[in-house]
Amino acid sequence: MSSQVIFQPSGKRAAAIPGESILDIAQGAGVGISAICGGAGTCGNCRIRVLSGSVTPLNDIEIGLLYPWEADGSVRIACQTQVVDTDDDIVVDIPRETQTVAQRSQVEGGDTDVALEPSIQVYDLSCTAPSVTDVRGDWERLAGDEGWLFDAPVMATLSPLLRAHNWRTRMVAQGERVVAFLPPGTAPLGFAVDVGTTGLAGYLVNLETGETLSTVGATNPQIAFGEDVMSRLALANRDPARARSLQSVLIDELNRLMTLMCEQAGVSTDAIVEIVPVGNTAMHHLLFGLPVSQLGLAPYVPAVSSEFSTSARALGLLGAAGAQVYTPPCVAGFVGADHVAMLLASEAGSRAGVTLYLDIGTNTEISLTARGQHWACSAPSGPAFEGAKISHGMRAADGAIERVVWLDGRLRCRTIHDSPAVGICGSGVIDCIAVLREQDVLNPVGGFRRGHPLVMREGERQWVVLAEAEATHSGRPIVLSRHDIGQIQMAKAAIRAGSKLLVEMAELHESDIDTIVLAGAFGSYIDPASAVAIGLLPPLPLEQIHQIGNAAGTGAKRLLLNEGERAAARRMVRRIQVVELPAHADFKDRFSQALRLLPTPWDE
Amino acid sequence: MSSQVIFQPSGKRAAAIPGESILDIAQGAGVGISAICGGAGTCGNCRIRVLSGSVTPLNDIEIGLLYPWEADGSVRIACQTQVVDTDDDIVVDIPRETQTVAQRSQVEGGDTDVALEPSIQVYDLSCTAPSVTDVRGDWERLAGDEGWLFDAPVMATLSPLLRAHNWRTRMVAQGERVVAFLPPGTAPLGFAVDVGTTGLAGYLVNLETGETLSTVGATNPQIAFGEDVMSRLALANRDPARARSLQSVLIDELNRLMTLMCEQAGVSTDAIVEIVPVGNTAMHHLLFGLPVSQLGLAPYVPAVSSEFSTSARALGLLGAAGAQVYTPPCVAGFVGADHVAMLLASEAGSRAGVTLYLDIGTNTEISLTARGQHWACSAPSGPAFEGAKISHGMRAADGAIERVVWLDGRLRCRTIHDSPAVGICGSGVIDCIAVLREQDVLNPVGGFRRGHPLVMREGERQWVVLAEAEATHSGRPIVLSRHDIGQIQMAKAAIRAGSKLLVEMAELHESDIDTIVLAGAFGSYIDPASAVAIGLLPPLPLEQIHQIGNAAGTGAKRLLLNEGERAAARRMVRRIQVVELPAHADFKDRFSQALRLLPTPWDE
Repeated sequence: MSSQVIFQPSGKRAAAIPGESILDIAQGAGVGISAICGGAGTCGNCRIRVLSGSVTPLNDIEIGLLYPWEADGSVRIACQTQVVDTDDDIVVDIPRETQTVAQRSQVEGGDTDVALEPSIQVYDLSCTAPSVTDVRGDWERLAGDEGWLFDAPVMATLSPLLRAHNWRTRMVAQGERVVAFLPPGTAPLGFAVDVGTTGLAGYLVNLETGETLSTVGATNPQIAFGEDVMSRLALANRDPARARSLQSVLIDELNRLMTLMCEQAGVSTDAIVEIVPVGNTAMHHLLFGLPVSQLGLAPYVPAVSSEFSTSARALGLLGAAGAQVYTPPCVAGFVGADHVAMLLASEAGSRAGVTLYLDIGTNTEISLTARGQHWACSAPSGPAFEGAKISHGMRAADGAIERVVWLDGRLRCRTIHDSPAVGICGSGVIDCIAVLREQDVLNPVGGFRRGHPLVMREGERQWVVLAEAEATHSGRPIVLSRHDIGQIQMAKAAIRAGSKLLVEMAELHESDIDTIVLAGAFGSYIDPASAVAIGLLPPLPLEQIHQIGNAAGTGAKRLLLNEGERAAARRMVRRIQVVELPAHADFKDRFSQALRLLPTPWDE
Repeated sequence: MSSQVIFQPSGKRAAAIPGESILDIAQGAGVGISAICGGAGTCGNCRIRVLSGSVTPLNDIEIGLLYPWEADGSVRIACQTQVVDTDDDIVVDIPRETQTVAQRSQVEGGDTDVALEPSIQVYDLSCTAPSVTDVRGDWERLAGDEGWLFDAPVMATLSPLLRAHNWRTRMVAQGERVVAFLPPGTAPLGFAVDVGTTGLAGYLVNLETGETLSTVGATNPQIAFGEDVMSRLALANRDPARARSLQSVLIDELNRLMTLMCEQAGVSTDAIVEIVPVGNTAMHHLLFGLPVSQLGLAPYVPAVSSEFSTSARALGLLGAAGAQVYTPPCVAGFVGADHVAMLLASEAGSRAGVTLYLDIGTNTEISLTARGQHWACSAPSGPAFEGAKISHGMRAADGAIERVVWLDGRLRCRTIHDSPAVGICGSGVIDCIAVLREQDVLNPVGGFRRGHPLVMREGERQWVVLAEAEATHSGRPIVLSRHDIGQIQMAKAAIRAGSKLLVEMAELHESDIDTIVLAGAFGSYIDPASAVAIGLLPPLPLEQIHQIGNAAGTGAKRLLLNEGERAAARRMVRRIQVVELPAHADFKDRFSQALRLLPTPWDE
């Protein structure tokens, strides 16, 4: 009847609504198009090809974002390309580099040897059958007159269970509140999950033995609505229905993961009695359905940052009827519960010496511990390390250039899975800049050396080629431009300036730092030597730089297994002094100094 | 396409599924047909007229239930009449006496002068706006680091409220748990409701002043699924989907009442912070979604009888995000929370002397208090007083004969609203039997006097005419038969036998009773003189018989207004000794003695 947009290669169809952008239509239809800036027309990530049908002509934003070889008109920016009123269907091809794909995820992380002292208690109970001489209720025959608290949906499970298991059950309680009735002998389970902006890492744990039964990684499905935190917050604030969608796609995915892990482990999701998700403050708010308008605007405050427990059922999560969801506290608007979990996993509370913790991302959370004190800040590093605003930037997925070295007089690249190159991810960009600096193709302020044979030039544009057209998946060259390098300079300067200011707050020098801990997926894939070479990190000996992987997930597991860790998290967060970088008088100055691509010790 | 059943007078349509009964189809379509026995083919209440279309022929059950003047084939019993495979539509007329109509309800009841000490506490709070120098969360700026407990949906309401009301809010808590954030100056509200098997009586209360803002009565919409408790339990146990329907129609109706009352009072349902429903054990279980299979089968035990509080939101009830539903304890499978509420309203805990409490219904709850001790039982009085199994029985709705007197040598009837007679309700039947006994038309064992001019006879059938054809709504006579009188004898014998056994348990005589308290709608409409005359009640002077109306609703209000009443309810229920009549060795004997229609003192 009316015309449709047909998305290739999936073949998915959606109504072609005149005036709506191809990106909007794709999001509405659940078609994954990478859109790091969330449709603002700044990142250029949502490149598509319009194979047939009528759309608005190329606009100036697109012309600014497209490379010369893309400017034949078939490559378009999806957020800028709108449907026009027509009877014809529009066929759109989503190139592999634009599809939102499963990122290389990381569920490993330091394992945890915390003592098993969960928040729940298990009681094996039995009662007599009712009779004409004992017509007390099932619950009263089981528990007498003891004063337990319980919700109706929990109690609704008791009577059939008692009758199916010869008047025996295993009761799970949290303090005086009954959380679940389980079949006799059933182990209560916990689910810990690191809710990252791009990836989810889940752990199914037996709360009776402490054993991890299953682990799984997955993509955060909110990616279809915007790749970074700010674009999702902006979307949620534009449209309350989208805020609910952001919550529900995440809940659905967590339910899918729990179901999958329970199947793998041969257990029932009904035995999950506690869930501990940790995420940054935006993920935390979106998951719990908390309002985010105040979080997306200066001064970026959370609705709530304290720890709490809330009903899993009320959120739509699977689990026992009374299962609780526990979140540790967030520190501030951009230092979330995941950072707290990471600090717990790193035993930051009891570590000697001076330690700098970095979790690099769109916002880089940085903590410094020294003399039992904590300082923390969030550096606005932007999405460049995740591939946004970089000509051929992409996340660390199949085909991403992840390592760059200098060999036989030229740049050599390694891609993830050795696939034909699709683009370049953050660790590749850092390597590349380090190599270009080492070979003096780049100067310390980020300019290409004039006349160097590697450097291409067309008008204002300058770039080096990382992979020739014939070696790439799209058949077009992959490059790193002067502009791309500028993006990375700004990102790394924000991080280094943040670190520096924390060190100053602690009345220390960078040379006093004993250990740098790099947490998170990105931190574990970068080459610390390259990171030092471009001045992203202070110049510590490499053996003092530790890459600990997904420590937030490990921290979530600790919070699940040991209630004492929750008290530790509370104590730690109370002691953390948050430094607001944008408001800090010296931030601009430190930022300017940190722009230079030098492995300089920053000592006064 | 396929044929339909068209219900008149409403004109509602539903698919005509061959093999399904007209009653099933009506229930599925939400068309109210009175079906006291729930479709078992025993009550004969679901009389309809099939105006056109093909249905199964009259069966033996119908022939047994229909009167001679109905046997022309157009009057049918809906639960026995099945659709046959046909292309024609079936047009069914539901006569007024078969429509489930709003029963005369009673929301009044003794008022309550209990002190105002609700379970909730109100805190008027304010905070500063966030700034770059104070980026704490909204909740942390409001409440500091105080250790309150809250669920995510409650906290989700805070940030927009603070911004709309100049950083002020009214917080409502129950102990250490936050229940709601309200706009400044908003009074927290409570909703108390008596959930009767047939009627609902709701009260909207201001928890800050104790004032009752609005009261409303309505029919329990579960009536469409069966008029008495046992038929609804049987339905719920046959089909879990119907159990959920029984819960959801009730929840929907309670939500409708809350919305209506809040509109009347000019307040918001979001300000309702606590709901106290009281009902018999079956209504209690169906409302809370508790399993009922063990409640519908001997020895009839509740899943749970203790008091509890549970989330309103989780049940689907309106109210503040954290609103709680509190239920006082039930006593036993057939002595429910409503009876406890009635005893509270009657201040049974502190009453001097010997008091007998009766709440007459399908199951009649009876309590005796003496010397600070309590005994209770449930007498299986059956639905005769509610009009079931009585030829022209009906509930106390428009057109029901509610009073019968002897005047100028004949029976004179008064109907509700003086409408043309539709049928006879319980109070009318009791009056009628008392009059027939007084005039010696009936003997004490319930037989009609041979040859009395009032008594009609055809074969085995004997009846007296209460209203001639020309004075009734249907144009057919309304009668009371020998069989009807037998039903009433059994009902009243069960009640009197139960009372007698409680008196015996207390080692007292009926003559020791100081007061009889008649609770509930039915108890307030019967004529105590008639009830004594037919031996339903022990022969006390009429001034010692108190009709207190809907005291269960009053008790619910007390539980809402004063938390101390909850402790009183707990204490009372712990002290109540439940007597299981069916299991009691002397019940059959006392029942047989009580069958006689005599105002005899039962003293030994």
